[in-house]
Amino acid sequence: MKTTKTFSCSLGELATRLGATLVGDGERRVSGLATLSDAGPDDISFLANKAYLKYLPATRAAAVLLHPAHVADCPVARLELDNPYLAYAELSRLFDPMAMPQEAGVHPSAMVAEDVSLGANVRIEAQAVVERGAVLGDDVVIGPGSVIGADSSLGAGSRLYANVTVYHGVTIGERAILHSGCVIGADGFGFAHDGARWHKIAQLGGVIIGDEVEVGSCSSIDRGALGDTLIGDDVKIDSQVQIAHNVQIGAHSALAGCVGIAGSTRVGRHCMLGGGVGLSGHLTICDGVQVTGMSLVTNSITEPGVYSSGTGAMQNALWRKNAVRFKQLDDIAKRLSRLERDARQS
Amino acid sequence: MKTTKTFSCSLGELATRLGATLVGDGERRVSGLATLSDAGPDDISFLANKAYLKYLPATRAAAVLLHPAHVADCPVARLELDNPYLAYAELSRLFDPMAMPQEAGVHPSAMVAEDVSLGANVRIEAQAVVERGAVLGDDVVIGPGSVIGADSSLGAGSRLYANVTVYHGVTIGERAILHSGCVIGADGFGFAHDGARWHKIAQLGGVIIGDEVEVGSCSSIDRGALGDTLIGDDVKIDSQVQIAHNVQIGAHSALAGCVGIAGSTRVGRHCMLGGGVGLSGHLTICDGVQVTGMSLVTNSITEPGVYSSGTGAMQNALWRKNAVRFKQLDDIAKRLSRLERDARQS
Amino acid sequence: MKTTKTFSCSLGELATRLGATLVGDGERRVSGLATLSDAGPDDISFLANKAYLKYLPATRAAAVLLHPAHVADCPVARLELDNPYLAYAELSRLFDPMAMPQEAGVHPSAMVAEDVSLGANVRIEAQAVVERGAVLGDDVVIGPGSVIGADSSLGAGSRLYANVTVYHGVTIGERAILHSGCVIGADGFGFAHDGARWHKIAQLGGVIIGDEVEVGSCSSIDRGALGDTLIGDDVKIDSQVQIAHNVQIGAHSALAGCVGIAGSTRVGRHCMLGGGVGLSGHLTICDGVQVTGMSLVTNSITEPGVYSSGTGAMQNALWRKNAVRFKQLDDIAKRLSRLERDARQS
Repeated sequence: MKTTKTFSCSLGELATRLGATLVGDGERRVSGLATLSDAGPDDISFLANKAYLKYLPATRAAAVLLHPAHVADCPVARLELDNPYLAYAELSRLFDPMAMPQEAGVHPSAMVAEDVSLGANVRIEAQAVVERGAVLGDDVVIGPGSVIGADSSLGAGSRLYANVTVYHGVTIGERAILHSGCVIGADGFGFAHDGARWHKIAQLGGVIIGDEVEVGSCSSIDRGALGDTLIGDDVKIDSQVQIAHNVQIGAHSALAGCVGIAGSTRVGRHCMLGGGVGLSGHLTICDGVQVTGMSLVTNSITEPGVYSSGTGAMQNALWRKNAVRFKQLDDIAKRLSRLERDARQS
Repeated sequence: MKTTKTFSCSLGELATRLGATLVGDGERRVSGLATLSDAGPDDISFLANKAYLKYLPATRAAAVLLHPAHVADCPVARLELDNPYLAYAELSRLFDPMAMPQEAGVHPSAMVAEDVSLGANVRIEAQAVVERGAVLGDDVVIGPGSVIGADSSLGAGSRLYANVTVYHGVTIGERAILHSGCVIGADGFGFAHDGARWHKIAQLGGVIIGDEVEVGSCSSIDRGALGDTLIGDDVKIDSQVQIAHNVQIGAHSALAGCVGIAGSTRVGRHCMLGGGVGLSGHLTICDGVQVTGMSLVTNSITEPGVYSSGTGAMQNALWRKNAVRFKQLDDIAKRLSRLERDARQS
Repeated sequence: MKTTKTFSCSLGELATRLGATLVGDGERRVSGLATLSDAGPDDISFLANKAYLKYLPATRAAAVLLHPAHVADCPVARLELDNPYLAYAELSRLFDPMAMPQEAGVHPSAMVAEDVSLGANVRIEAQAVVERGAVLGDDVVIGPGSVIGADSSLGAGSRLYANVTVYHGVTIGERAILHSGCVIGADGFGFAHDGARWHKIAQLGGVIIGDEVEVGSCSSIDRGALGDTLIGDDVKIDSQVQIAHNVQIGAHSALAGCVGIAGSTRVGRHCMLGGGVGLSGHLTICDGVQVTGMSLVTNSITEPGVYSSGTGAMQNALWRKNAVRFKQLDDIAKRLSRLERDARQS
């Protein structure tokens, strides 16, 4: 996709806006944002990761955002600041075509129940459905084909892309971003067994989501069995994530793709779960925990830090031998202890 | 979500309905269901797990469902029975606002082919699509935006929430519950390679799903390549699950979130697969097998029991050392055997 | 699903079409395709895997596609050729009811922006949405409830099933097949941290998908942060797959269900990733790599071959002992080295 360059700004204005020190022509205008290697003379670029330092000397960008430590190799104008990645984030939003104001209104093909409460400047796109009792705050955008269940609410500035599903009785805060295919408030997985077959436990709780939360495509956040599933402010959830009933996620935590969290587990604040991580049910994970990709956590964690499980990939022939030995590991350990004992005694 | 308390009942009526022994005022009415710690004086609660026994003495519930062994600490009226969790399941359905009868009829924005067969009391919600030749049994509910493909059938009492997709030629039994975003009957993943590129194998089979099956949000059950993918009665499938073509799942089995089952594998009856479990293709798993979370099963299982793989999470610094050693494990085992041999000879 | 047998053909015609040597009555007609054990006298069948050789002697098929090496046990007419699996693929498409030409046109309930470019013979089904500036090539089919974002394009012959979502600015090649619930072009997972909270990085790139690509149900392919996410020609992607921003997948690669690929990783050509495989971000995987199911790859791979990680499943009681020992593995290795040293010195 070629970004539609509807935004243009002078380097001087950008430096002021970002709080950067400009070294170069403040009148020069830029109309695009690109990587060091892709940028042309109308683009601004950035250096936020040393791995890309090698691309700096040859960049054709009009100017580069960077840390003062890296100015030596910069062949063009520069905007110096302490956190270039954060500045890039702000800059990216200036160039975002999706951030352009869109016409408010309800598309004629959308179905909105009569008693729905609509804030100012709400936009409801084609084929969407908003059921009875729902409350949409100011500036909410409901994408095409999305469905908002009865008595659910969306805070001001929230945006749902196409084909999102929000069940009944779900509360979502302000400035949420929900991507296509995600489902908020489906039944948790609760069944009682009578010795022969399963009996459904109706899921009577809801989902409460804080402000500034983003949920990726095709992710699921289930409603609570009795109480609510709770997602704190500023929680960021990637695609293909499953969050089971009555889970609680503390504010500012980030969950990468394909994470799965079983029922009633509580994740602290400022946690980061890598892609494919699985948490068993009924655990408590304290604040400030990082779990690396595809790890399985079956016990609560009470100390901040980085946690991991699993084995790294290796050539299959070697792996086959080692995996067989894994099944003998307890035996190996016992044999080693025996040898040590015998050695001490001899 | 505050459960809309449309249901109210006396403790005496509840005791009769659940087959419980009531100790307390049979005339007292309850209008809600809540956990021991959340319940107020109009609520009934339950104790089904010893871990929650600590909340019993201070509960403010009107009454508590519990096993006779736990009556000592109950400060309020009680309903005694042998399986309080099962009784809670029944009770939960009494309080379920979704269980209230809804008005039958086809929403004017829904598109239903002329030759579709509709049972009594069918409800088809806004923006839904039902294609030619489909058959919907009595009391079926099709949620907004859901699509039923040509010649597919849904048994009596089945409920599809919003944005469910059922492809053509799929047969679903009675009282199914399909959650939003799930997809039944997409093509299995079949391609033949000619040495240079892939050639699609048309997936000519279907999917046959028994009675009382629930499928979670964003789960996929693919159609068979030639024969059908088969899901038995009373199978419960959580969110984010993938079931590949020609898989067979025996009755009463339960699959937790993020499970993946590769093509043509047969899972027995009364099996339980933990979250994130993966089964390779063409396996046979016998009845009564449990697999713990995130385990990988690459061989058939012929004995009932509990199976596991993987390693639990630990602090990253320790894990790094151990993971490196895993790659040396076969070598370690051989060196240990050599030492043992030398020790025996000395 | 019973395949609707709308196709009928003589064995002689099939032999010519497939380049097979027919031994049997060229005038005999077949009207169905089935497995060796399910086939009846009007069906053709095939033998492509030795595991099914045991079903050959008793088959009731009219004829069997097979390799010349297996003719001895064939009790019926046969079509001999070198790659029966490839011939089965071709045959399956002849019998595919979905391959029948469908009526072109835009369903009255679909919402298509005025400036959309429609090729010849396009079919847009009920409740679909096609936004401004989109370009649909000849013979494109858009299933019910699918949404095509602004300025996106679909090459000739592409087919989207129901409830697919394509965001704005996505380019898809010819003859793509996108299954229900898949989402192409949602935002990549990009946030900058200011020490206290997250700041969204607008995802300004797009997704470019080559020709002959298939994407399974409920899979996600995210748009790039600045440049594009790239999927090569003839790439086959199963269900429940996540492909993060700026990933590149080389032509002819195949990704099984539940694969997750983190941001900016490049996968080569002719690679095969097994079910549930995870690739960390910023890796380079060379051409011709196979990774077995549920392996985690955290380093780049520079040599073609087969790679694996993890441990196979075992009985839980044994696994618990071994998993505990895994946490001691570095210690075990050091103790072994000490013993070896002591033994050498004694």
